[in-house]
Amino acid sequence: MKLEKLVGERFKERPADCQIDSHALMMKGGYIKQVANGIFSLYMPLKRVTKKIENIIREEMDKIDGQEVMFPVVMPASIWEESGRYETIGSELLRFTDRNGAKMVLGMTHEEAAVHLVREYASSYTKYPFMIYQIQTKFRDEARPRGGLIRVREFTMKDAYSFHTSQEDLEQYYEKCHKAYERIFARAGVPEVVSVKSDSGMMGGSVSHEFMLLTPVGEDSIAICSDCGFSANMEAAESVIVNTPDETALPMEKIATPDMHTIEDVCSFLNVPVEKSCKAVVYQKNMDDSYVVVFLRGDIEVNETKLRNFLGEEIHPAVITEESGIVAGFIGPVGITDKCTVLYDNSLKGCNNMVCGANETDFHCKGFSVERDIPDAQFNDFAKIKDGGICPVCGKHSITVSRGIEVGNIFQLGTKYTKAMNMTYLDSDGKSKTPIMGCYGIGVGRLAASVCEAHHDDYGPIWPMSIAPWEVHICAVRADNEEVRAAADKLYDELQSAGVEVLYDDRKVSAGFMFSDADLIGVPVRVVVSPRNLKEGCVEITARDKSFSEKCPVDDALEKLKSLVETMKKI
Amino acid sequence: MKLEKLVGERFKERPADCQIDSHALMMKGGYIKQVANGIFSLYMPLKRVTKKIENIIREEMDKIDGQEVMFPVVMPASIWEESGRYETIGSELLRFTDRNGAKMVLGMTHEEAAVHLVREYASSYTKYPFMIYQIQTKFRDEARPRGGLIRVREFTMKDAYSFHTSQEDLEQYYEKCHKAYERIFARAGVPEVVSVKSDSGMMGGSVSHEFMLLTPVGEDSIAICSDCGFSANMEAAESVIVNTPDETALPMEKIATPDMHTIEDVCSFLNVPVEKSCKAVVYQKNMDDSYVVVFLRGDIEVNETKLRNFLGEEIHPAVITEESGIVAGFIGPVGITDKCTVLYDNSLKGCNNMVCGANETDFHCKGFSVERDIPDAQFNDFAKIKDGGICPVCGKHSITVSRGIEVGNIFQLGTKYTKAMNMTYLDSDGKSKTPIMGCYGIGVGRLAASVCEAHHDDYGPIWPMSIAPWEVHICAVRADNEEVRAAADKLYDELQSAGVEVLYDDRKVSAGFMFSDADLIGVPVRVVVSPRNLKEGCVEITARDKSFSEKCPVDDALEKLKSLVETMKKI
Repeated sequence: MKLEKLVGERFKERPADCQIDSHALMMKGGYIKQVANGIFSLYMPLKRVTKKIENIIREEMDKIDGQEVMFPVVMPASIWEESGRYETIGSELLRFTDRNGAKMVLGMTHEEAAVHLVREYASSYTKYPFMIYQIQTKFRDEARPRGGLIRVREFTMKDAYSFHTSQEDLEQYYEKCHKAYERIFARAGVPEVVSVKSDSGMMGGSVSHEFMLLTPVGEDSIAICSDCGFSANMEAAESVIVNTPDETALPMEKIATPDMHTIEDVCSFLNVPVEKSCKAVVYQKNMDDSYVVVFLRGDIEVNETKLRNFLGEEIHPAVITEESGIVAGFIGPVGITDKCTVLYDNSLKGCNNMVCGANETDFHCKGFSVERDIPDAQFNDFAKIKDGGICPVCGKHSITVSRGIEVGNIFQLGTKYTKAMNMTYLDSDGKSKTPIMGCYGIGVGRLAASVCEAHHDDYGPIWPMSIAPWEVHICAVRADNEEVRAAADKLYDELQSAGVEVLYDDRKVSAGFMFSDADLIGVPVRVVVSPRNLKEGCVEITARDKSFSEKCPVDDALEKLKSLVETMKKI
Repeated sequence: MKLEKLVGERFKERPADCQIDSHALMMKGGYIKQVANGIFSLYMPLKRVTKKIENIIREEMDKIDGQEVMFPVVMPASIWEESGRYETIGSELLRFTDRNGAKMVLGMTHEEAAVHLVREYASSYTKYPFMIYQIQTKFRDEARPRGGLIRVREFTMKDAYSFHTSQEDLEQYYEKCHKAYERIFARAGVPEVVSVKSDSGMMGGSVSHEFMLLTPVGEDSIAICSDCGFSANMEAAESVIVNTPDETALPMEKIATPDMHTIEDVCSFLNVPVEKSCKAVVYQKNMDDSYVVVFLRGDIEVNETKLRNFLGEEIHPAVITEESGIVAGFIGPVGITDKCTVLYDNSLKGCNNMVCGANETDFHCKGFSVERDIPDAQFNDFAKIKDGGICPVCGKHSITVSRGIEVGNIFQLGTKYTKAMNMTYLDSDGKSKTPIMGCYGIGVGRLAASVCEAHHDDYGPIWPMSIAPWEVHICAVRADNEEVRAAADKLYDELQSAGVEVLYDDRKVSAGFMFSDADLIGVPVRVVVSPRNLKEGCVEITARDKSFSEKCPVDDALEKLKSLVETMKKI
């Protein structure tokens, strides 16, 4: 490919609306063009990257007996009504009607389509287990697309669905798929991707993992134990708090705290550390606006996903009215109105001599002892795990909270979809049973952007050889020089004949201009053919990641480059 | 791949709703499953076929310097408003609004997206020519999906767009693309596809070609000259009629023809051949319901597309009212009301002594002489070319009208889109100019179905090696026999190691059951390993198309099969 003919704009200035580097570099380098909010066209260089990623995924899915199929992008609402998701999913599911008024949706995932495809076929236990997958366009009407290809509305995704006759079989396959994912990310050049236990949210299963590329610009938070290697996303990471009660538990005593509406104000007024306070956070249920009060230690934050999962319904921060009986700013566990749901976080267990609200305007209590004063309380985990907190596995204070981009996920779905959609099979014992499903996703465009985010410098992406748009980039500096032209043309032809993917820059532009374009395109190996090098009978071979740079005799260049490409592919 | 684990139902009965064989075979063979009207999921065998077709297309597009890109499926209405198509295309363009109420469409083609992608990039003549293409899901809300994958609503299409600075350059590239298409269809196993000149309809260009696979079940009609090779679709094929006037032109004379409302009735009453009559066909313009009367020779039919193109607007068959002044059943060219548009077809040129309507109820005329009685008439081609008609190129009576499936098309679009969307470039003369476009489509799924339609027998598809789901199908008849199992397993492993794509049937089912499944899957080469063959030290190798069947010593089977596959790939 001649660079001169490569369609796509490259430019120097970082676009003002790009908050993260991969977005900026993909705009500057002629990789993507925005068509609408969260909807992009891809130029050739990125299309080449995503095709290579897709092929890696395909190979690894085939290795674990995946069968590539194809579901439609446009689906009838009827199958989503069967699963119940037509009702339960919000406006990120794009709904419309076709010319005949039939209700349709744009596929954001394909659990329903997968069950639809196999439910007649897989009616006997002898057909199990099996896995089907596709690599295809999805649409999710995100409220807030961001970060270029990191969070978009239209995207290419590999989604896989496995079907099993027992939980053990699902678990075995899940483990296989977990390993396949590790191979995929390693082969795509980001072996540093970590898998973390996750909350499975609307997918509705039990066990699930997210594969996270750790980066400060990621939109998810992950708790990782630096000691034992435990990792989980914030929703799934159990918050462990160990309290040591004071030896002497003082009696509970009401004190005036006029105009002190926050627990910090009260603690500072009473001169006690915030850890010795019990605060209340109030929500309302979306369904009926009834109140939910969560009590937890003053220094701990509520994790709303944990709360939502516990309640099994949607909630929002409360607007506290007079009629509620809740005394905003002075809420405490003792004597609180019974018109609301009251919940206690694990962080309160074992606390005594605490400060808390008195359920009376301008009054708090001190000397609150949890086990003594609320003996019937049930404790659950509603808290966010903290940086420096206790690891729920090894028990050490070794948790760090990092940010990451989710590049893949795997779910043990159970029978949620098969049950709802009446998929059954006849088991060997003659009984009709419901198959158990797993599902496994990877966002192709997001993975490409994540690799760019993880591997770039100020000048452009540093593509790993395995997914680079081209393998070798020839810069013919002074292509108007006959000798340069001849040597570069010859190398270009020879490399192509040898099956090496070459981008050839023979434009009549300055070396600086050429190199800055080469940086933006990020091809891993660059060869400079210039009058100066040729005078020494050499070309100059450099790695995009600066790991090496050497002069190589012209006659050895072909072999040198071939073997370099091969070696770098294997890394 | 073990056949036992292949997901998909195969069954014996032809589904009642399948009108064409490819549809029936794809249903029976576990290739497709309908999800909604005109929307299908693909099982693994067809996905493998379409992937191979896509790769053939990709290779040929890359050879003519195509750059693979990716446009979105979901596009903002705004770019379709720029081109004007948001208004002009009917309900086959699926329109909807997103969560924010923004108007969106599902892409049915991507001219707008192509211009959007390159209009800033290609602002100088130095960037031209170039071609970009994608292989991607499209949605066209067809009123009447039919024939399985032949006419669907959701489909995978390769669509390519080229940009040029001169008509000559477009024409040269168009020719290159025409040749690439010939290679694609030949490589996909249907070298018999013919290219025909076509009417370019809503795409709005001038020159265009359709690539047609001739088959009686096709939905398009094509005129082909068996003598000179001329071919065109019915809309584009000029109808040539040569009339020899009688030596003596009789005077025009009114005659009573009570209750004879058709030209056939009148001709039979007067005992003249229908060729000696002039009939009228009446339409109304959609815009204002005004009348259009087309006169043509009694034995010739109107081609409504030609009429539509001539008028430049939509028409529909007329409902003739009293107020129109048109005397239904008795319309003639002489004395017709001037309240309608009157048009004359070329087929009337040189006619005399004709029968025609008298514009008076129950009366016709005889002795109508075209040049004498309507001397100011303008003649145009509004007629359907006829089987046995005159070839517009070589002039012989050698036209045959065949039916075909359109598997691809190429268009010289001109500046329709670039002009409407304000795409310009600075030419070498310093002037701002509008680029000229071509566009080039191939429906991937339809091509797969067409190959199946062209190459099948009663028992299943006969896939060409180049796009077959697998290359070799091993039938281990009596796989419970140790010797059979060992020989078949060994062959399976060896073939796979040699890079041959093998489907392996080792199920404990009858040979008949096995063979009928093999027929449905249509793998080009079958190897039968059975106790009987092994007794002779042989396996049996047969071609799905029955072109050969031979016993081959077990030890030679691997080499034999490898070379067979290679040979058949090259055909």
